[in-house]
Amino acid sequence: MEFSPTLRQDSDVPLYRQLFEQMAAKIRSGSWPRGERLPATRELAGQLGLNRTTISAAYELLESGGLITGQVGRGSFVTGEPAGSAGVDWSGLLERAEGGKAVYPAAGGRAGISFAMSRPSRALFPLDEFRASCAAVLTRSDLADILQLGSPSGYEPLRKYLMEEARRQGAAAPGDDLLITNGCQQALDLIGRVLLRPGDTVAVEEPIYTGLKSLLSGMGAQLVGIPVGADGMEVGQLERVLERERPRFLVVTSNFQNPTGATLPLSARRALLDAAHAAGVPVIENDAYGELRYHGDALPSLKQLDEHGGTVLLRSFSKVSFPGLRVGWALGPRPLMDRLRHAKESADLHTDQLSQAVLLDFAESGRLEAHRARVLKAGAERLEATLESCSRYLPAGTRWTRPQGGMNVWVKLPEPLDASELLGRAQKEGVAYLPGRYFAVSRLDPGSLRLSFAGLTPEQIREGLAILGRVFRGAVESGTENYEPAPAMV
Amino acid sequence: MEFSPTLRQDSDVPLYRQLFEQMAAKIRSGSWPRGERLPATRELAGQLGLNRTTISAAYELLESGGLITGQVGRGSFVTGEPAGSAGVDWSGLLERAEGGKAVYPAAGGRAGISFAMSRPSRALFPLDEFRASCAAVLTRSDLADILQLGSPSGYEPLRKYLMEEARRQGAAAPGDDLLITNGCQQALDLIGRVLLRPGDTVAVEEPIYTGLKSLLSGMGAQLVGIPVGADGMEVGQLERVLERERPRFLVVTSNFQNPTGATLPLSARRALLDAAHAAGVPVIENDAYGELRYHGDALPSLKQLDEHGGTVLLRSFSKVSFPGLRVGWALGPRPLMDRLRHAKESADLHTDQLSQAVLLDFAESGRLEAHRARVLKAGAERLEATLESCSRYLPAGTRWTRPQGGMNVWVKLPEPLDASELLGRAQKEGVAYLPGRYFAVSRLDPGSLRLSFAGLTPEQIREGLAILGRVFRGAVESGTENYEPAPAMV
Repeated sequence: MEFSPTLRQDSDVPLYRQLFEQMAAKIRSGSWPRGERLPATRELAGQLGLNRTTISAAYELLESGGLITGQVGRGSFVTGEPAGSAGVDWSGLLERAEGGKAVYPAAGGRAGISFAMSRPSRALFPLDEFRASCAAVLTRSDLADILQLGSPSGYEPLRKYLMEEARRQGAAAPGDDLLITNGCQQALDLIGRVLLRPGDTVAVEEPIYTGLKSLLSGMGAQLVGIPVGADGMEVGQLERVLERERPRFLVVTSNFQNPTGATLPLSARRALLDAAHAAGVPVIENDAYGELRYHGDALPSLKQLDEHGGTVLLRSFSKVSFPGLRVGWALGPRPLMDRLRHAKESADLHTDQLSQAVLLDFAESGRLEAHRARVLKAGAERLEATLESCSRYLPAGTRWTRPQGGMNVWVKLPEPLDASELLGRAQKEGVAYLPGRYFAVSRLDPGSLRLSFAGLTPEQIREGLAILGRVFRGAVESGTENYEPAPAMV
Repeated sequence: MEFSPTLRQDSDVPLYRQLFEQMAAKIRSGSWPRGERLPATRELAGQLGLNRTTISAAYELLESGGLITGQVGRGSFVTGEPAGSAGVDWSGLLERAEGGKAVYPAAGGRAGISFAMSRPSRALFPLDEFRASCAAVLTRSDLADILQLGSPSGYEPLRKYLMEEARRQGAAAPGDDLLITNGCQQALDLIGRVLLRPGDTVAVEEPIYTGLKSLLSGMGAQLVGIPVGADGMEVGQLERVLERERPRFLVVTSNFQNPTGATLPLSARRALLDAAHAAGVPVIENDAYGELRYHGDALPSLKQLDEHGGTVLLRSFSKVSFPGLRVGWALGPRPLMDRLRHAKESADLHTDQLSQAVLLDFAESGRLEAHRARVLKAGAERLEATLESCSRYLPAGTRWTRPQGGMNVWVKLPEPLDASELLGRAQKEGVAYLPGRYFAVSRLDPGSLRLSFAGLTPEQIREGLAILGRVFRGAVESGTENYEPAPAMV
């Protein structure tokens, strides 16, 4: 019985559950046929370098799910998926092909350093300040209103706060409205629901944030990727695409794009707006990372620069504070916002009000700004450690972006290195990253990979990049013949 | 300048904002043309019976939105929507017809009693118990994990708790999985996204919950309504529809259906499952109200009775605890649940984790059960007051359902009374309800209306129904000639 699971130590899903899911998949796919004997827990624990209780917990889940059965003194056997779905043919109903979700690569080995997740550092969460904001909410006189069914527009005090902030910043035009969403992801989803018709084309960045790619593809949109260079989206290319393809809308990340870290310079912002205006194409400005600028001066957002009401700005509390609380917002012209609000009401009535109230207090009390200052300081150090270590450890001929903020650096290894193929070796050495193919729209650069640095300490970053450098330089020296392919990850 | 706004005193949206929105609509629609002079705040305040500061706040919003301009000593004038949306033709892009959302009727007058909202009583929220559960969460050792990006499946400790509860109840089959959603509404939305293809037919109840009607219609589904009688969906009709229409799926509320309050008897549950199984049609069991049984014995859910894996069960914390916290779940066969989880990840990554953790503590600590006991006691009294008052006050020939739980009673007035037309009179007397047309799929019974009693005290219920009885009896006596139509509400 072959079994080499891909386990993520840093995942929110416990190891026993990851193990269970991958075993269950083996059984359901028929790789482990009915009657097959599973290894003893002690044996598998030794083989995978895991605690025996982890294995037992996974076996228990398999057993309670009816996938295996234990026989005293004989061991555990595969019983297979329980029979009896005669009536509803689920696989027939669900036939529409949908690529499986990316399973993020785990950092194995001793180092256990993962550059794979673009998320803030758990260690920097200001728990006491968070508790103080919760305490403040719990004494609010409108606590019962927070717990009662609310408005699809959002918790009104938060909406008002964000709208006033947007007015002060000159981001809100007179005809604008603001809608609270479950993070930027839901705002993108609602925009797709409201604007997309079957077969529509959407202009996006190449490489693109994976969550946007799977969202738009899942809605049946045709994606056209506009290459992103060190200075963000190539506006000349965009102009040609706008003219030729007449996309339904354009999604662009103005600051510290995921995955490249690139930021659009001011002149490109203006040129992009002119091109979109001339083509009559709406601009969806995804600005999840804009608050995380470690160096240099902030640029005005596309929304601030747009004098023609063609831009929708998406922002969120997730990257700068707590992504487990799903609160973001969309700001744009009222006719669109009215429709987004209706779509929001159909989707889930409204965003959770407890978190909206807590984040409002976190912001109003000044705790968000104080936390942001700490995040910016740590981010600057982490970014610096990343760029320095790239320069010190990566093989000659490697190129990488030099962002001034955000969470990601984009690396291009010299030919003929293949970041997907090398991931297996890196994981054996205890370091993980996401290869470029996760982010490709139509052009795959096999040497590309994303380093998400925000969740790691400078020490981990240096150690991780030293290891990656060794793995990549080793591949340069040994040629490309002896690649071991990485375990399947899609 | 004509202006008679529909204002909801019981709304979460402040009065000044309701006022602002309705004035802005007048300006945007052109009913109030550019240059028109607005009444002075004092004058309008007197006219509408509102505080002058409310009017001023609404005017301020209009002014900051650029819709009106104030001139010292002359008053405020309509400036109209700011010009300049040359590039993006939003109204063209948004051309797809979508009926506006229902604006819930307000209870005006002195009584101010609204039977319009199917939601729990704000006054019964156990704020101290809620605070205690928040405090417990804030001392959890995994607090930082709660704040970090989580899993699309849901917060694992809550998922495990709900899965174990479902196993104990015999609701979870061996091949089942459970997904946390933002309430039942999002579960319905995800199911639609995953299962529906353009032009598909869906079998639903007639009358139907409005949120489900607008969701499915918005997705382009053709709805076929199966009449709901005092004993729930008419299964004989369902059988014919399943055979003739081959719907993509069936959505059914097993307990205390919204709007009728009807519950499917055991024999009908079995017959429904047999019919769906024979037709190979999945059953979506919406059980948002099942926990709110005030009398009689609980019946096994369709999910518990289904031996063939064709049913998905949707439940939620909203109706029995706090609807402002958006946490529900779906339980069903794993192939479907895998797809729902992918759809969930695209929609908003995952459900808010703070509320998931708080509700888990609320349940595990026994506070939910204690709260439910109080809600059941209050609900029984309110239901009794409703049924008694219907019997005492409504005109001869009126019929109504006699639910054993939930939040709603369905009333049919004797012909030729029209519940939509009479709403205006009722509102003038200070009482609101939702006429049957909000819930119609294809068959409109003009005499029908929904009374949502859970949010009102027995005293309010008696007073409200006494007034309604007077209005309805008055209409019977005076004939139907003198109806004043209610203000537009759609």
